[in-house]
Amino acid sequence: MTITTLKERSLLGLKELDKEEIISILDRAAYWEAQPAKVQPVIPGKFVANMFFENSTRTRFSFEVAEKRLGAEVLNFSAAVSSVQKGESIYDTVRTLESMGIDVGVIRLKPIGVLADLATKIKVPLINAGDGNNEHPTQALLDLYTMRKQFGELRGLTVTIIGDVLHSRVARSNLWALRKLGANVRFCAPGNMASDELDAPYISMDEALQSDVVMMLRVQLERHEHGMIKSAEDYREHYGLTVERAQRLAPHAIIMHPAPINRGVEIDDELVEHPQSRIFPQMQNGVPIRMAVIERALN
Amino acid sequence: MTITTLKERSLLGLKELDKEEIISILDRAAYWEAQPAKVQPVIPGKFVANMFFENSTRTRFSFEVAEKRLGAEVLNFSAAVSSVQKGESIYDTVRTLESMGIDVGVIRLKPIGVLADLATKIKVPLINAGDGNNEHPTQALLDLYTMRKQFGELRGLTVTIIGDVLHSRVARSNLWALRKLGANVRFCAPGNMASDELDAPYISMDEALQSDVVMMLRVQLERHEHGMIKSAEDYREHYGLTVERAQRLAPHAIIMHPAPINRGVEIDDELVEHPQSRIFPQMQNGVPIRMAVIERALN
Amino acid sequence: MTITTLKERSLLGLKELDKEEIISILDRAAYWEAQPAKVQPVIPGKFVANMFFENSTRTRFSFEVAEKRLGAEVLNFSAAVSSVQKGESIYDTVRTLESMGIDVGVIRLKPIGVLADLATKIKVPLINAGDGNNEHPTQALLDLYTMRKQFGELRGLTVTIIGDVLHSRVARSNLWALRKLGANVRFCAPGNMASDELDAPYISMDEALQSDVVMMLRVQLERHEHGMIKSAEDYREHYGLTVERAQRLAPHAIIMHPAPINRGVEIDDELVEHPQSRIFPQMQNGVPIRMAVIERALN
Repeated sequence: MTITTLKERSLLGLKELDKEEIISILDRAAYWEAQPAKVQPVIPGKFVANMFFENSTRTRFSFEVAEKRLGAEVLNFSAAVSSVQKGESIYDTVRTLESMGIDVGVIRLKPIGVLADLATKIKVPLINAGDGNNEHPTQALLDLYTMRKQFGELRGLTVTIIGDVLHSRVARSNLWALRKLGANVRFCAPGNMASDELDAPYISMDEALQSDVVMMLRVQLERHEHGMIKSAEDYREHYGLTVERAQRLAPHAIIMHPAPINRGVEIDDELVEHPQSRIFPQMQNGVPIRMAVIERALN
Repeated sequence: MTITTLKERSLLGLKELDKEEIISILDRAAYWEAQPAKVQPVIPGKFVANMFFENSTRTRFSFEVAEKRLGAEVLNFSAAVSSVQKGESIYDTVRTLESMGIDVGVIRLKPIGVLADLATKIKVPLINAGDGNNEHPTQALLDLYTMRKQFGELRGLTVTIIGDVLHSRVARSNLWALRKLGANVRFCAPGNMASDELDAPYISMDEALQSDVVMMLRVQLERHEHGMIKSAEDYREHYGLTVERAQRLAPHAIIMHPAPINRGVEIDDELVEHPQSRIFPQMQNGVPIRMAVIERALN
Repeated sequence: MTITTLKERSLLGLKELDKEEIISILDRAAYWEAQPAKVQPVIPGKFVANMFFENSTRTRFSFEVAEKRLGAEVLNFSAAVSSVQKGESIYDTVRTLESMGIDVGVIRLKPIGVLADLATKIKVPLINAGDGNNEHPTQALLDLYTMRKQFGELRGLTVTIIGDVLHSRVARSNLWALRKLGANVRFCAPGNMASDELDAPYISMDEALQSDVVMMLRVQLERHEHGMIKSAEDYREHYGLTVERAQRLAPHAIIMHPAPINRGVEIDDELVEHPQSRIFPQMQNGVPIRMAVIERALN
């Protein structure tokens, strides 16, 4: 594998990434997971900037652990404590850190299209850590990795993604990547949370429970103040993974969720650490996946 | 000393810690204080997460310096910039960091009982960095260390803790630890700030001044909006260590305070760096104490 | 060069620094810029605390990169998430970090005179990272470095500083340092933003365009709610570096700005990355300058 161009070292999304690249990242993550030593300074003297223009505990720490395990120097930028408040644009901030000599930038942001635009202007590889409603490639990669660990093979797996598909970058990245690896992806969503743009069959909750993987999406309660959901109770009743519904899953099926979780809304509290749940293992798998992605960026 | 169980590597409080363990930590802190090299990477490749669900400049930096002096990788979580705001529970945050592979968690939080509950569920050692009104063991350990440096021996020392005993985790941890090491602990507090639960004699300010150690507690002015104190001036007049009162201390006596200080309320400005004050030395001693506690957690 | 006293290792301002010291810092920055390895742990085991009592993305990260490139351990304190909110004074915070064993403190703050006072009380070298309206020495040093890289020599250069001179620590530090190195400094400012105290000629925008260097200052829009500027449009019309005005610059002239930039106010958007602009190179040059300054502090 010869990685040469900036575009090939960046990771903006999975829609454009080919199957071989995806498998190569999953394989490298498996290598990292198998290492006995937690820190192996394979990229000493490299600076990675985590630039989070949207808050995220989980994703930011996962990247930070991955970076430190690779021996990188880590800079953490969070918009909430920064001069973005002084009206500085995202571009100026990223360009500033580039000028200071960072070797790779990890970026999370909300506005549509800004990341794609940045990637044409910034000369260091960029890694998408959540890009509006567009893509969240490292989340989907860790999801694929988790499924591959469970089932050995993604080809032929039936995966149902349940919830607010319309606004979910996780659903989009997973759809595209899972398809490339031969999985059978379906959605289950309230009518007003379905996406016209994504080409996958919509099924009922009853059908959804006959999957190898049920992937619950977080309900963005705050986004739906305009009547998109009636109430948390109503949502749970119609689209939540309740204890009762979970009992109808096949014994080999697994439960996934990108977190953070609304316990008792899209998934019952008792199921979060259920034997069939892979929610915390997903978080564990995020670290070697991100090690592989950052290492690839610095090749 | 063979430390084996998770419970034995954690440090939740001093109430349950036996005298030998306390002395062993103090001795190890003395070892660390005597080291000429500031950083000795005795725990390379270990990740320590400082999880502060309640703000604290002083304690967090003290832990961070201690961790870095031991060569650990440090993750700093502060609730104010995190998804706790998105309704994520403390448990989910700690469990998330555990999943990402941290080796020890340092936790400060407010809600009563949450730390004890976490300790039964989380599989890595936890260090209490301030737990509601319950305990603050590393603070008390550094206080003991400071007294031992001063007097050589804690047995027989007369220590008076002055102020809001009722709400003070510092008072509680100190009481229990000092007793185990043979010190004579007394309280001095306004009636509505005395604790029924803690079994120690209450004495007057006049008597308090006849101690080897006077330990002033911070008045949580913000907690007492419901008439628990009349005014800062009134508090100072009755329970503050004023310049005038300090003149009545024995020449060998020392003044302590866990900080942060309300200058001019519980202690006069001029006394903070008085020759008999050990307030900044306490902060200095916090670093080797926390090195010993973290090293112990990773044994 | 023998650096011995605390005062000589600190960097509080350029007004008091002699020419040889300035040149020595610029030369050492050139050394650091020429190093192929990004990280050279010349100060291992040293702790540097960045204490920012006023927000700054750019300056803080620049120092952090510099510190990490030197192999230092970095502590980041930002007032917005700290106990300064609990009424703790700046002094107590700095003294606390000193007690914990930091080797050098980098400080940004607003209140006039506090830094000078701290320097008399704190026993570790302090580096001024922006001190109210007084000085911003590392910014001016990187500005000088940028000009020297461009022109080889500062003697005889004509530099015009344009904008809110009255409130600008950048203008002050640059004036004093440029003068010492033989440059010809002029100001261009609206009448209510001129400083009586600084002894340099005021010229018109037309004259300003006949300079070797035009240094635009940020308009602190928020500071001027009391009628100091009519509007952003009006300011741009009279004192902004517009595309039209930039066309009248000599081909060898360069455009500078300390950033963050109000695009379209003091400088037109199209000029920020114009071939004659050195704005992002200034940020790049900040890192080796700050490496030289920190290294000097630890000598």
